[in-house]
Amino acid sequence: MIRKHFAGFAASALAMAVTAQAFAGTVTTDGADIVVKTKGGLEVATTDKEFSFKLGGRLQADYSQFDGVYTKNGDTADAAYFRRAFLELSGVLYTDWAYTINYDFSHNAGDSDNGYFDEASLAYNGFKPVSIKVGRFDPDFGLEKATSSKWVTAPERNIAYDMVDWANSHQNGLGLQASGVFAESFYASAGVFSKDTDDTDGNSIKQVNGRFVFAPMHDAGNVLHFGVNVASRDVSDTAFDSRYRTRMGMRGVDTLGGNDAGTNGNRPVLGGASASPAGSYDRDTALGLEAAFAMGPASIQGEYITRKTKADASNVEDLKGHGFYVQGAYTLTGESRGYKVGKFDAIKPANKAFGAWELFYRYDSLTVEDNNVTTASLTRDVGDASVKVHNLGVNWYANEAVKISATYLKAKTDKVTNATAAAGAVPAARTGDDSGDGFVLRAQYVF
Amino acid sequence: MIRKHFAGFAASALAMAVTAQAFAGTVTTDGADIVVKTKGGLEVATTDKEFSFKLGGRLQADYSQFDGVYTKNGDTADAAYFRRAFLELSGVLYTDWAYTINYDFSHNAGDSDNGYFDEASLAYNGFKPVSIKVGRFDPDFGLEKATSSKWVTAPERNIAYDMVDWANSHQNGLGLQASGVFAESFYASAGVFSKDTDDTDGNSIKQVNGRFVFAPMHDAGNVLHFGVNVASRDVSDTAFDSRYRTRMGMRGVDTLGGNDAGTNGNRPVLGGASASPAGSYDRDTALGLEAAFAMGPASIQGEYITRKTKADASNVEDLKGHGFYVQGAYTLTGESRGYKVGKFDAIKPANKAFGAWELFYRYDSLTVEDNNVTTASLTRDVGDASVKVHNLGVNWYANEAVKISATYLKAKTDKVTNATAAAGAVPAARTGDDSGDGFVLRAQYVF
Amino acid sequence: MIRKHFAGFAASALAMAVTAQAFAGTVTTDGADIVVKTKGGLEVATTDKEFSFKLGGRLQADYSQFDGVYTKNGDTADAAYFRRAFLELSGVLYTDWAYTINYDFSHNAGDSDNGYFDEASLAYNGFKPVSIKVGRFDPDFGLEKATSSKWVTAPERNIAYDMVDWANSHQNGLGLQASGVFAESFYASAGVFSKDTDDTDGNSIKQVNGRFVFAPMHDAGNVLHFGVNVASRDVSDTAFDSRYRTRMGMRGVDTLGGNDAGTNGNRPVLGGASASPAGSYDRDTALGLEAAFAMGPASIQGEYITRKTKADASNVEDLKGHGFYVQGAYTLTGESRGYKVGKFDAIKPANKAFGAWELFYRYDSLTVEDNNVTTASLTRDVGDASVKVHNLGVNWYANEAVKISATYLKAKTDKVTNATAAAGAVPAARTGDDSGDGFVLRAQYVF
Repeated sequence: MIRKHFAGFAASALAMAVTAQAFAGTVTTDGADIVVKTKGGLEVATTDKEFSFKLGGRLQADYSQFDGVYTKNGDTADAAYFRRAFLELSGVLYTDWAYTINYDFSHNAGDSDNGYFDEASLAYNGFKPVSIKVGRFDPDFGLEKATSSKWVTAPERNIAYDMVDWANSHQNGLGLQASGVFAESFYASAGVFSKDTDDTDGNSIKQVNGRFVFAPMHDAGNVLHFGVNVASRDVSDTAFDSRYRTRMGMRGVDTLGGNDAGTNGNRPVLGGASASPAGSYDRDTALGLEAAFAMGPASIQGEYITRKTKADASNVEDLKGHGFYVQGAYTLTGESRGYKVGKFDAIKPANKAFGAWELFYRYDSLTVEDNNVTTASLTRDVGDASVKVHNLGVNWYANEAVKISATYLKAKTDKVTNATAAAGAVPAARTGDDSGDGFVLRAQYVF
Repeated sequence: MIRKHFAGFAASALAMAVTAQAFAGTVTTDGADIVVKTKGGLEVATTDKEFSFKLGGRLQADYSQFDGVYTKNGDTADAAYFRRAFLELSGVLYTDWAYTINYDFSHNAGDSDNGYFDEASLAYNGFKPVSIKVGRFDPDFGLEKATSSKWVTAPERNIAYDMVDWANSHQNGLGLQASGVFAESFYASAGVFSKDTDDTDGNSIKQVNGRFVFAPMHDAGNVLHFGVNVASRDVSDTAFDSRYRTRMGMRGVDTLGGNDAGTNGNRPVLGGASASPAGSYDRDTALGLEAAFAMGPASIQGEYITRKTKADASNVEDLKGHGFYVQGAYTLTGESRGYKVGKFDAIKPANKAFGAWELFYRYDSLTVEDNNVTTASLTRDVGDASVKVHNLGVNWYANEAVKISATYLKAKTDKVTNATAAAGAVPAARTGDDSGDGFVLRAQYVF
Repeated sequence: MIRKHFAGFAASALAMAVTAQAFAGTVTTDGADIVVKTKGGLEVATTDKEFSFKLGGRLQADYSQFDGVYTKNGDTADAAYFRRAFLELSGVLYTDWAYTINYDFSHNAGDSDNGYFDEASLAYNGFKPVSIKVGRFDPDFGLEKATSSKWVTAPERNIAYDMVDWANSHQNGLGLQASGVFAESFYASAGVFSKDTDDTDGNSIKQVNGRFVFAPMHDAGNVLHFGVNVASRDVSDTAFDSRYRTRMGMRGVDTLGGNDAGTNGNRPVLGGASASPAGSYDRDTALGLEAAFAMGPASIQGEYITRKTKADASNVEDLKGHGFYVQGAYTLTGESRGYKVGKFDAIKPANKAFGAWELFYRYDSLTVEDNNVTTASLTRDVGDASVKVHNLGVNWYANEAVKISATYLKAKTDKVTNATAAAGAVPAARTGDDSGDGFVLRAQYVF
């Protein structure tokens, strides 16, 4: 380790400049002047801003327990897994170009055929304020999604996103997007995407996304934010997963990156099917509205989201769903949530000894109409199915790198329940839970 | 980000040396003096050359469309994928040793059982000019292969390489190789390899490779280059993939790293079988000749390659094939292609504002004789099968890090065609295309 | 490459300090002073010890041949693979926190569902001398395990560990551990773990581990070390792999990361079953004793290990096993093995030209009682089965980064033998070997 060599170094910056040349080797560069920085990771940049390089990462280790409708047999299960384990590389190339590679070593992004990318992209920033980005990245849709997974308030984003997962996840495809902040208060983006699901000819699913934000108040602790989102994809002649389903805020019911609840985890399907045959549907559309307000350490935010999957066959009915969440958060130690136009950012603890403490509550709701369900199954009754989840939690920001959180969740369902699977001579059977409880503990660090 | 702190810095190097000590913290080392460098990645080296470390990468994002013989049903399909996404680590250890680790996050190199290595090796350079390398790396075979995938002219290397993929790919084995440049004009290498396919006793396939190059003219823009290559492997008592097949220059017909054409992509088999039983063949040999000439911004190059798989069973016939390509390239903006003895290198744009623009045309040809084919199938007629591909493209080198390219491809086949697969009640059927068109767009960056 | 720019630099450190400011760009930081270091990788640290970052790795490339009981048909097989290929990131965050991420690109740690982690953890070091660690890491059990895989003497650790692999491997779960060195001579650790195997309700296997070491002599070349280890896990109501098996010191019989012996590799099962049904067993317990002594270039060490898997069903018998090893090592060039309380460390060559040369011999023994075996199978006779392995090898430490080793192994078995598998019309058949020979060559580098 480097550290043991430092003992004799003088503390004052000026004395250091002298002693460093006397006792230590020099560090220079053979081109433009460079600045180096570490806060546990590494940043290097030329002072003329022509080049920079940053290496870092994030790790989220979760432990959770849950029962009732969160499991198939209703008994308590647990999970211990990495939610995210990103290696993050980014940099500036010749002033106007910038790249980002975030790779998920926990395998919760991407898959074995396509690599485990959270993002891998190249942006051209020469047409300020517009940034043009190409590569693999999540389409822009929603406020909670725009906020980094490092600094989103609850462990998992709201369950209405589960319903429209295609709207704001890259699904191993590629995209092209233009975005920018205008007049300090407006953010807009538009993108086209080619997703990794093929129609019967081998053509990828095409998707378009748009997001527009107006934030008349846009400083940390002083936020007023409104936004609208749209996403639409063409699923005609395509066999695809049309499910409207949700983990009900509990990742451990079904996750990679470690131990989940295995075959006993329950992830209810409110509508659609895992493999809708080609020709069943035509166009899949999601709409979203968002609003947020923050005043000092307090913030409230909410989003309303709808999805409609238009039927393309005479024997198939449209799928429809809508959901929303409202969240309140309060920082007991007084810090404000960071904000940049379009998204919230980190809470930076003011007190180095005790860190920052934040309380939050979020209410999630999701309702799905699938008129293709005409007879009850073990897990789904006829009629509109719905899920509601209460999330109550506390976040401890020990410093700018380490965050520990504990969250209690309570889910309630209607017309969708749990059921055990058939095993050997034992037939599948309805368990019948319409509620469940659980908690999630998370240790997170970023570097 | 580091950059916002730089505003007050003086621009002149001398003034910087003073102000840096007054306003900024010092960066020193506790051993030999160090030089740091970034061009979007990171390089660190001790000035005594005992140690160095380099971290970088390359990313290639492709979008393509293609029809005719490129697909099974002849209709247009598309693909959007990462061709390569390398994390690259290399360095010098105690002066004489050097290591390289290039890992493909797009999963197009290697596989799940063996890791996704492009290369992971250790070289001993103490016997100059000979370098001795051990580890996982591609055997040396061919000029276009010797050129880095970052700077090869067309998106994909020529189709004659498809026929001898084992000759210059590591196939998840390990190798030992000696190579060196002699008298400034000669390059030679010889290697032995243990590949990841076993004979019936569990012994790996053994392969030997040799390459010899004579380059009487060996400076960028002034190149005359001749080379010969040989590769031979022992496939006796080994069940293996003996196919002579090709993607016809269109990676998207069948690729990992994102969306390909799925089940509709066509990758014709001109000879051999995907699982030849142990005892079918004995020795597999590939030969290659190469030549190149460059004068200023113009270059031409070509290679001729043969493969013979010798039969070892009385009821099996030898497999034979030969192929070649010729390529012409011209840099409109006047830059020469880089060259080091044995391989071409990057084009470095002279004009910072407009970059470098390069036009190229390559003609690929491949012919395979498989006398085991005695009755026509839906995709293969009796007699020698052949594929020819025209590649016409333009490369824009925006700077030394970013390259954008567009390529048009036209394929023609003889005695090998496309056919749809059986599905449900629909039987397999010959489509009958013997030509196809397509294009590939690529955005590439290196850091 | 950076190096070509250095030619004109003066060699003396003082002259460098001057010329560097005249000829080269400056490298500064915008916060606390920083020290940079490379020995082929990279280390960066602030001089106030608040932050540090280290990037490095290790690669082990093995080639081996073996026959007799090491293969199913008794004939010679070979293997060429990466044993480990770690990317290693670690650092200090805000003085008291430290993280480690070691990721195995060779895929021999972890798996596709959970990522290929050797370790990913966060430690809080604010309660000195206790360190509290959370994340994915191997439970503490045994002296040879405590020693880094970079510097363990033989290529593979002793075969008694094979029997208790769960006791000191993370199995893709998460853990919480407290550990510390006390009074310079004592080391203690205690941990709880949630493993990635579920009981019938989806609850992860819970495991507890403890290790205690007393080392009255604890300097390199002057070591006296005693230790005791315990590990216990609850496997009630859990379908799990209860096998007591071993690779007999020869990784190539069955490995990822490259070529192994394929279907002909033999990895004998001495007891238990690959899928014991839920309800078969109750509690699985491992105990270990360890001792070591080093005097100058000579060292001896040994461990004794037992395992008992308690039956929980009336028709199932307990599984029991015990094993041990003794090892002697001698550094011909005179260097001592490094030692820190609880574990051995690297040998650092004194002579830069010739490196360090070490001879070693290790004798491994393993005996398993499985009274569920009441009739002989093709590979297992009734009664206690045992395996003994002789390991004789030489390690060349070329420098602190490069290690080359050659090891000869001889295995003897009792009541467990090899047998060929059924294939087509050929029935499975006992081969009947009770001994086997082999060798392993390894090239290793760390950076």
